[in-house]
Amino acid sequence: MTTAKRKPDLHPPREVPSVVVSRLSLYLRELQHLVRDGRVTVSSSQLGKMLGFTDAQVRKDLAYFGHFGHPGVGYRCHELIAEIRHILGTDRQWTVTMVGVGNMGRALLRYKGFAAQGFRIVAAFDIDPRVTGSTIEGVPVYSQDRLPEIVRQQRIQLGMITVPATEAQQVADALVAAGISGIVNFAPVTLSLPEEVALVGVDLTTELEQLAFSVANRIPPR
Amino acid sequence: MTTAKRKPDLHPPREVPSVVVSRLSLYLRELQHLVRDGRVTVSSSQLGKMLGFTDAQVRKDLAYFGHFGHPGVGYRCHELIAEIRHILGTDRQWTVTMVGVGNMGRALLRYKGFAAQGFRIVAAFDIDPRVTGSTIEGVPVYSQDRLPEIVRQQRIQLGMITVPATEAQQVADALVAAGISGIVNFAPVTLSLPEEVALVGVDLTTELEQLAFSVANRIPPR
Repeated sequence: MTTAKRKPDLHPPREVPSVVVSRLSLYLRELQHLVRDGRVTVSSSQLGKMLGFTDAQVRKDLAYFGHFGHPGVGYRCHELIAEIRHILGTDRQWTVTMVGVGNMGRALLRYKGFAAQGFRIVAAFDIDPRVTGSTIEGVPVYSQDRLPEIVRQQRIQLGMITVPATEAQQVADALVAAGISGIVNFAPVTLSLPEEVALVGVDLTTELEQLAFSVANRIPPR
Repeated sequence: MTTAKRKPDLHPPREVPSVVVSRLSLYLRELQHLVRDGRVTVSSSQLGKMLGFTDAQVRKDLAYFGHFGHPGVGYRCHELIAEIRHILGTDRQWTVTMVGVGNMGRALLRYKGFAAQGFRIVAAFDIDPRVTGSTIEGVPVYSQDRLPEIVRQQRIQLGMITVPATEAQQVADALVAAGISGIVNFAPVTLSLPEEVALVGVDLTTELEQLAFSVANRIPPR
């Protein structure tokens, strides 16, 4: 289900630092803005400048995955977008479920950005009978006890957890048992998952704490 | 306004890697869970194990800021919580504003986690007359043209931007002009800010991309 078909020249070392992968996402976002503005090519220094990185940083990050520039031209925006999406694995559609349709879950269901990058939320789950049976932005909200059945049936690959912290581990266990390959956890708690399941934790309080630290210690941005 | 009063023994080097600061937030979160469960002390290996880090990692991270353990005891949870909050700068209250009261802004206004860690949202802004003048979770929503006046008047220190990408830079400029010290940007666009203003960008699509990359390349979690 989640086997990555890679071009022969693209064998990223297993130990690509996660910060490099984060920057790939930023490069992709900038390149997509450039294309929207009608740009055809961009140099590493131009791309870096937009993000506050050096050109050397941009080249070094991309060098983990291959050679994408053209002498005297720089990067062709469309081409580099396709390459980065291929590297990230977002050149195909991912099926996603969301567990927990409270304030945050609801806001995320209404967010248009996911679909644009290849993430299709196909089902949501909640325990509250006031929301189960409804449809939010075209996504059906099922009762949480149907999670194992529906995740399997629809071969859902990724899960977003937006339930309270006290329920997050139990939801994660259910997702894993149903065969999910990766989880984005928005609950402010550390999950314990089997090795083979990928995990990204997003704690919005943590982001504010990072900011407070920077301000309190007057560290320049980024 | 944002001058950090630091203990004499706490002079973090300016170049503490941001990943270390992120982990401080995770340590804090775990310690707070431990205290809630009645725990008094914890060792670096126990704390690391809860988060999937080695004990050496925990000790190395904390060593950037001082010595916090007690021989034969480990860390006293309450004490380490106080120290980490002091380092992060969250041992005092921060005043926060939110600009953009759409789905995401509304969800964040209802999120209880910020206040618990010292971030008090005191004002929100929007351009939509259907929401301005209202109060969401006790937070007044003002018309956006009152931003300069209210941010200054209430000495608001941090801003969260939850407007569409196309409007984010203009909002950031207004916040900076009004004297804000740091911004968390939820809009999927790179902001250009003066050096002295701290910036944290949160792009939820990027988080899903990180997950897709891990799954596609079968890299173990974290």
